[in-house]
Formats: sequence, C-alpha cells, structure tokens
Amino acid sequence: FQDVNHLVIFGFGFFLMVLRRYGFSSTGLNFLLVVLGVQCSVLVEDLLVLLRVQQSEGGMRSLAKAVVSTTAVAISTGAVLGKANPVQLIVMSLVELIIFYVSRCINRIFLQVPDNLTLMHVHLFGAYFGVAVTSRFPELPPGLDKNRSTPKSDLFSMLGTVFVWAFWPSFNSILADYKTEAVLNTYFALAVSAVAAFILSALTSKDGKFRMTHIHSAVLAGGVAVSYTAHSIQHPWIAMILGLLGSVITILGSHCLQRCFNPAFKLQDTSGVHFTFGLPAVLGAVATVVLCVVEKGISTQWNNLSSLGYLIFVDVGAFCQTISTALITGLITGLILNIKLLKGVHVSKYFDDQFYWEVSFKILSDSL
Amino acid sequence: FQDVNHLVIFGFGFFLMVLRRYGFSSTGLNFLLVVLGVQCSVLVEDLLVLLRVQQSEGGMRSLAKAVVSTTAVAISTGAVLGKANPVQLIVMSLVELIIFYVSRCINRIFLQVPDNLTLMHVHLFGAYFGVAVTSRFPELPPGLDKNRSTPKSDLFSMLGTVFVWAFWPSFNSILADYKTEAVLNTYFALAVSAVAAFILSALTSKDGKFRMTHIHSAVLAGGVAVSYTAHSIQHPWIAMILGLLGSVITILGSHCLQRCFNPAFKLQDTSGVHFTFGLPAVLGAVATVVLCVVEKGISTQWNNLSSLGYLIFVDVGAFCQTISTALITGLITGLILNIKLLKGVHVSKYFDDQFYWEVSFKILSDSL
Amino acid sequence: FQDVNHLVIFGFGFFLMVLRRYGFSSTGLNFLLVVLGVQCSVLVEDLLVLLRVQQSEGGMRSLAKAVVSTTAVAISTGAVLGKANPVQLIVMSLVELIIFYVSRCINRIFLQVPDNLTLMHVHLFGAYFGVAVTSRFPELPPGLDKNRSTPKSDLFSMLGTVFVWAFWPSFNSILADYKTEAVLNTYFALAVSAVAAFILSALTSKDGKFRMTHIHSAVLAGGVAVSYTAHSIQHPWIAMILGLLGSVITILGSHCLQRCFNPAFKLQDTSGVHFTFGLPAVLGAVATVVLCVVEKGISTQWNNLSSLGYLIFVDVGAFCQTISTALITGLITGLILNIKLLKGVHVSKYFDDQFYWEVSFKILSDSL
Repeated sequence: FQDVNHLVIFGFGFFLMVLRRYGFSSTGLNFLLVVLGVQCSVLVEDLLVLLRVQQSEGGMRSLAKAVVSTTAVAISTGAVLGKANPVQLIVMSLVELIIFYVSRCINRIFLQVPDNLTLMHVHLFGAYFGVAVTSRFPELPPGLDKNRSTPKSDLFSMLGTVFVWAFWPSFNSILADYKTEAVLNTYFALAVSAVAAFILSALTSKDGKFRMTHIHSAVLAGGVAVSYTAHSIQHPWIAMILGLLGSVITILGSHCLQRCFNPAFKLQDTSGVHFTFGLPAVLGAVATVVLCVVEKGISTQWNNLSSLGYLIFVDVGAFCQTISTALITGLITGLILNIKLLKGVHVSKYFDDQFYWEVSFKILSDSL
Repeated sequence: FQDVNHLVIFGFGFFLMVLRRYGFSSTGLNFLLVVLGVQCSVLVEDLLVLLRVQQSEGGMRSLAKAVVSTTAVAISTGAVLGKANPVQLIVMSLVELIIFYVSRCINRIFLQVPDNLTLMHVHLFGAYFGVAVTSRFPELPPGLDKNRSTPKSDLFSMLGTVFVWAFWPSFNSILADYKTEAVLNTYFALAVSAVAAFILSALTSKDGKFRMTHIHSAVLAGGVAVSYTAHSIQHPWIAMILGLLGSVITILGSHCLQRCFNPAFKLQDTSGVHFTFGLPAVLGAVATVVLCVVEKGISTQWNNLSSLGYLIFVDVGAFCQTISTALITGLITGLILNIKLLKGVHVSKYFDDQFYWEVSFKILSDSL
Repeated sequence: FQDVNHLVIFGFGFFLMVLRRYGFSSTGLNFLLVVLGVQCSVLVEDLLVLLRVQQSEGGMRSLAKAVVSTTAVAISTGAVLGKANPVQLIVMSLVELIIFYVSRCINRIFLQVPDNLTLMHVHLFGAYFGVAVTSRFPELPPGLDKNRSTPKSDLFSMLGTVFVWAFWPSFNSILADYKTEAVLNTYFALAVSAVAAFILSALTSKDGKFRMTHIHSAVLAGGVAVSYTAHSIQHPWIAMILGLLGSVITILGSHCLQRCFNPAFKLQDTSGVHFTFGLPAVLGAVATVVLCVVEKGISTQWNNLSSLGYLIFVDVGAFCQTISTALITGLITGLILNIKLLKGVHVSKYFDDQFYWEVSFKILSDSL
C-alpha cells in the first residue's frame, strides 16, 4: 500500500507547478530533482544511522520520509522555475535537503517536536526557502511575457491541481499515527477550500468570471493549512473552517503579494509558491498553536498557565525556527547560485525550453 | 486503501464527460460540483443521524457513500454540459442529491433493497435525471457547431474513458460485501464490452473504421450493466455476456436515439449520457431481476411461484421507482432551472468557455 | 489492493509507447490489444486448469498473471506501431500470448524456473518478439517523415514515461514473494537510472542539452534490469549499480543500434523497444546468473563447482530459450502477418491515423 503513496507524491511533485508554461523543462527537471532528492535523503538518513545518531527504521518508512522531505524541493523549484538552469537547480535541491534535515533535527532535539510533525514543516520550509532563493535572481524586464500562461497550459495545470488535490489526503496521512482521522479531516478541509476557491474567485473578479490562477492556488490551501493538525482534530467542522480560512488567505494573499509585496522586494515568484504554500502553512501553524492551547487549557481548566505558556513558546519557536532557517539559508543559497561559476541563465533566456532540450521548437511555438 | 477509491471516483467524475469540448468549464465545473456534492451528501447523512432516522457509520464508509452518490451529479452534468451556467448546475446538483437520497430511502424502507444496492441505482438515476433536465433547455439551432468535438478533445476524452475504465472495478466493489467477486466480474464485463465496442464500431461504420463516440460510450457499458450484480454473479461468463449485451445495446441505442428518439422529444444530450449510462443500467436492472429469479427458482425448484412473483414485483418496482422519480423530478428541476431568476445562458452562448473564464481565448481557438 | 495493480499495469501498457505520434491509433489499439490479451490469457489458463495440466489459483492472482503476460504484447506492439493494421495486431497479440505461454511452460517444467520468475521474462520475450516481427515488415522509404515526433507528442510521451516509472515498483512486486524488498530495490534501481539517464543524455549530446528519446528509454532501464532479482537482492547498492548499468547500456545501445544494427538488418523499431526493454532485460538476465552464482559460491565456499556449473547452465538456458523462441516465432509471425490475406498496410499509409479512424484530421494536422 505504501508504494501507492510514493507515486502519489510523485504525481504530486510532478503535476504541481509543472506544465504551466515551458512544459519540457518543468516536467523533466522536476522529475530529475525529485528522484535525486529522494536518493539524497535516503543517503543522509543512512549516514546518520551509521554514525549512531538515530535509530534505523524500516525501509518503507524511511523511503516515505525521504519522499515527503523532497516535497520541499518540489515546492522551492516552483519559485525559481524558468530562471535557474539544471545545474543550479541540482545544487539548490541538495543544499535545501541537507538544511531541511538540519532544521528538522533542531526541532526534534531541542524543541521536542515529534518526528512526523517535523516533516509537515515541509511546506513552510519549501515555500520560504524558494521565495528567498528567487529574490536573489535578477528580475525579468517587464517587456518579456514568456512566463504568461496559455489556455492550454492552464488546462494542464488545472489537471495537475486536481491530481494533487485528490492525492493530498494520502500525503497528509502517510506518516500520521491516526490515519483515518487524518484522511477525513484533510478531505473535508480540501473540499471546503475548493468550493471557497470557486466562490471567492467569482466574487473577486469583475463579471463574476472564474480566474484560473485563483483556483489553481486556493484549491490546495485547505490541505496545506490542515497538514499539522489533520491527525488530531476531533470535529470535522474545525478542519472545514481551517480549509475556508486557508482559501480566503490564499486569494487575499495572491492579490496583496502580487501588488505590494513582490514589487517592493523585487521578488518574482513564478508559480505563486508564496501564497499557495507559504501563507496557508503559516495559518496552519497558528491554528496548531491555538488548537493545542485550547485543548490543553480545557483539560487543565486553565489552571496551569505557566506550562501552557511554555507550550506556546515551544510551538511558536519551532515554526519560527523553520521559517527563519529557510529564509536565511535560502538567501545564502540564492547568492551562491548566482556566482559566475554556475553559469546563470541570462535574463533574456528565462522561460525558454529551447535552451535545454534538443527538440525542434518551431512547431511547439506554433501550436502552443 | 479507501482513499485510493475516493480519488478513483474523483478521477472518474472528472475525466468522464469532461474534456470533450470546452475544456475549462467542463473540467472546472465538474470538479466544483463533485466537491460540493460530497459535502452536501455527508451533511444530509449526518443530519439524518442526528435526527435518529438511521444509524451512524464509520467516517470512511460514510464518505465513500457520499462520493458514490455524487456520481449521479457527475452523470447528469454530462447531459446539460455547455447549456447550464454554474449557478444552474449548483442548484441542479443540490436538488438532485437530495432527491436521490429520498429515492434511496424509499427503496430501502418500502422495497427492502439492501443499502449498498440502492447506491448502485446511481447510474440509472443520474442518466434519466440528466435527460429529463436537458429536455427543458431550449434546443440549439442547427447552424451552430460549437459542440462538435475536435480530434484533440477526442484524444483527451479517450484518455478519460480509459481512466474511468481502469477504475471501474474499484467503483463497483467499494461498497460490495464480496469485494473480490465484484472486482473480477466487473473486470471481465468491462473487458468484453471494450472488445465488443471496437468490433461493433468497425462493423457499423462504413469502411470498417473506428468511430470515437462509439468506443467512448460502449467501452463502459459492461461496467454499468454489471454494477447491480457484480458481487453475486457466480460464473464469469454471465458477467461477460452482460458486458457484451451492454456494449451492443449502447451502440444500437446511440444510433436509434440520435436518429429517432432525440429529435422527437427535442432532446439534446451533450455527452450521450442516455445511451452511455441509461440504457446499460436498464439492461443491468433487467439482468438483476432475471438472475435473481433464476437463482431463487432453481433453489426452490420452481415450486414457490407466488414468492417468486413477489420478488420480481419488488425488484422491478425498485427500478421503476428510481426511473420515474428521476424523470419526474428531473423535468421539474429543468423547469425551475429555466426560470428567469437564474439567468439562463442564451442559446448563442452555449458551449462557450469564454463566458465563464477570464482567459485569453483567442489563442485557444487558434490552437484547439 | 490488487486492483490498483491492474490499472497500474494498464496505465503502463497505455502510456508507454503510446502517444508518440499518431495518437488515436496507438492509444486506442493498445487499449484493445491489452484488453483482448488479458481475456485470452485468462482463457488459456482456465483451459489448462480444465485439462488438469496445472492447479487452479485464486481469481485475483490468475488475473494479475494474465495482465503481466499481456505486457509482452504491449511491448511488441511498440515495435510494429504504425506499420501493422488492427487485424494484424490482433493476430500478432493472440499468437504472441500463446507462444509466451508455451515458452513459460518450457522454462517451468524443463528448467525448473519458479513460476513468478518465468513471468518476468516478459520484457525479454516481448522485446525480441517485437523486433523479429518488425524485421519482416517492408521498410519505410527515407523520404517520409511521418514517424517523426513533435514536441507536443514528446511531452505526452514524457508524461507516459513518468507514469510508468512511478508504477514500476508495483509491477515488479506484484507476484514476488518478498514484496517489500522488491519494491525498495526496484525503486532504488529506477531512481539511479533516472538520474543517470539525464546526466548521460547531457554528456552524449552536443551543447549539453537533454535529448528526449534518451530520457524516454533510459529512465525505465533500471526497472527492467532489476526485474528478475528485485525480490532477492540483499543490499540496495547492488540494485543501484544495476540501475546505473541499465541506463548506460540503453543509451549506448540506442546509439549503436540506430547507427549500425538496424540499417544492417533493415529493422525499423518505431518505439525503440529493442534498447528500451531488450538490452536492459539481457543485462538483468546476466546479473541474475552472476548474483546467483556468487551467492551460491559463497555459501558453499566455492567447493561444489559442478553443481554451480549446472546452475549456470540452467539459468543461461532459460534466458536463451526465451530469446530464441521469441526471435524464431517472431520471424514466423512476421511472415504470416505479411501474407496478402491480412491486407497489410501499404508503406505510404504507415503512421497515419486517418486510415483507421473516422475523424476530421485536417484540424489535427493543423494543430499538432
């Protein structure tokens, strides 16, 4: 049954930010990075087992964890897609995986976060690492419109989104202790956020038409928002509210970020990774802390406030640690990647399939 | 393992009537309707549990049943695709789900049909509801050919069909008591009907060429025809004969319906829902009654004819109840949907993506 | 859980060689052949059970074996794709399945190969049967370039490859005794060969660009090479080395075969079945023998050399038997298929969708 999950996540990493525009590179390179990332993760873990730092686990579970970690790479790739060349992407993904591993170790050892929850920081880490890396790449001059999506690529991207949507419950439950609860809560959160995405998209755009990018990003928000808490939520309506909030925050975020935040920081987030994964993950983090505090508070009848404060401190600390590690190391990685040595792509060559693949692209440009 | 089935059915609802022509709307709206439908089903069921009408079930099973019910919506949508606007579709799907629930209750309580068999009436109900609804929509003037399929959309549609084909055994067995038998029988029925579809298509068309629409609809006929009886058929060859008959009836049906029946009733069945799901489901219903009678008859050595008659009466009653409920409520729903209030789409805007999506469709019309 | 595997393999047969160029025929006909093949396999097996030649097995396992056998047909079809008409393909697949069954019986009865290992000869058999059949078809005149791939078809083909890649571990483990080991080893072999495929493709082409055909074929090499030994390899690094070797041999093979071997024998291997499946399967066969000998040798401390020699003799014999049967019967089948009776396609009609499908292909040729 586990292998279903592998390909699930594969399908996920694959279809997600892929297929927007320059199909070949995004599909092919993402595949390469995920495969490389999984191997690298397994090797790092085996190395630590050898060094007696941690205990060995069953092969399947170890592989599943490696695949989940690699999601961070897939998300970050979404942010720099079309700007980095293959060598840069490979370096980025290897660096990212090692740093994510270090960040997880800090969370696990110093902040006592359970091992499978540290893995769920993957969205948070991936998104902010990607954003930080992409901020170090030179901006695209406004004249070029190669990163515009076409209806056909939008259609593919939509198919990819639904694919990821359908597999998300498996993703959230693969390492959870209470699988059934995790699947159900994730499903409800996803369902609510999908409906909310359509309604909000129709409300925010003029003429009441749907806008593809809204749906593309907001549909998944619920799944990301609920990822830390899916196994522990008792009532489905809490998951549903989280899904709704996730969807709202993503669509608002996509407006605000693209108008105010991105130009100010000269960011260019190709696939909208920041609002698709980053913001819902932050929401999920806040929700985790709140839910945890409320639950503990009720069970102790709000008597033991100092232990409650300590709990909040540790939980918030874990999330802040992840975000700050992601941002700082992302910036450094971005700087390293743009050193001359790695032969950065010239701005005019951004978003161009022709640069990496030996195919006759005249036909492509005609038909796409 | 259950979640596999969810996405399965998702994939199903998704790929099926989708992607024929105006890709965005069919893909996107179907996704929206299925998600909404599942939530609505779960809510209705939870409401009834609250009201003590029926017993609560495990979360997974309840969700699985909700997803199966929603298939009715997906099928009906196939019939009105391109004619109804999103608001009409949402109203239709909510109304349909509630009526289907009522129809199932009648079957379960008054006609003693087992609960998981009432769910298998979903094809019958969905198809005839859709046909009845679509009959109330104004007809398309003959000049317009927007609903013509292009080779590219046919290719997608074919992929979708194979997708559904491959997942159908899971669909038929998800709620069955004897899963293995259900899977095997469905598989054989599907395999036979797929082969029959190709052969019949080559035989009926001039030059012996394959016609895509034949294959598109007849390939699935076996799975639909066998859906009531998949868990109880003892010999694979019965399933195979059902598959063959399903395929034959579908291809004959597609000829007759499109030439005689549809013009007479001024119907316009966009995706051929009537002959793809309706006719094989009727065949399946007849087969169920016949098989049940033969089995009972043999076990009682044809002595107890009065109880046999009662059995036939109840079984036929259940199917007739489903069809008539579907037709009557479908007509009413069709009338309600065409009230001015819901802003029906003008005939000239039928089958137009541009109407609902904010995308530059010049490129689409060029490349598709 | 088994049914997942069915569709898996379906998805596999489907996406694999399909979708390169003339989409309709490859997709549709492959579907037809696989469905027909599975039925034929099940019937042959049931016939033998009736004749008391072998024992009956559970329905699911029997179906799984039928699906695996049918992979041979899917692979062989890849070699003659676009040259044979539907009737020829159906005859070919029926003949091939029966011969493959006979070849398996010989291996099982005379050479004592375990039953599930005989099924893994499917790649070897399928590839060489296909190559032999295609050598009997008239060659395409050099002027025509209908079998050229377009970027769009390459993109589809890539998606298909990743699909197959993701499902391969299930394929290798479906009949294995130690499923977990089989999945893990296959996964590592596949991962290494995917990375190797990208790197080798960049190294061998000028400008360091990736070439699609390399990746298309080399990505799967690891999975094929490891298919005989996946369940028995103790250390993942052996699987990884096999994956690497498989990838290298495929890319070297694709160069050598296309330049020297194919013109010499007037072969025309449409989908590169020979180097995608044939060569890695031969490598896997050699690896099986070597690994088996080393293991036995170590356990007996190289004392019992005569029994070792016998072991090598039997193992090599099984593989040679499969290849030679495939080649000889393939040649004969190729000759039979080109008899006038079956109305072979004229060379000028090769690779033409229009010949078999009733669709308006003007639009297709415009947009593809």
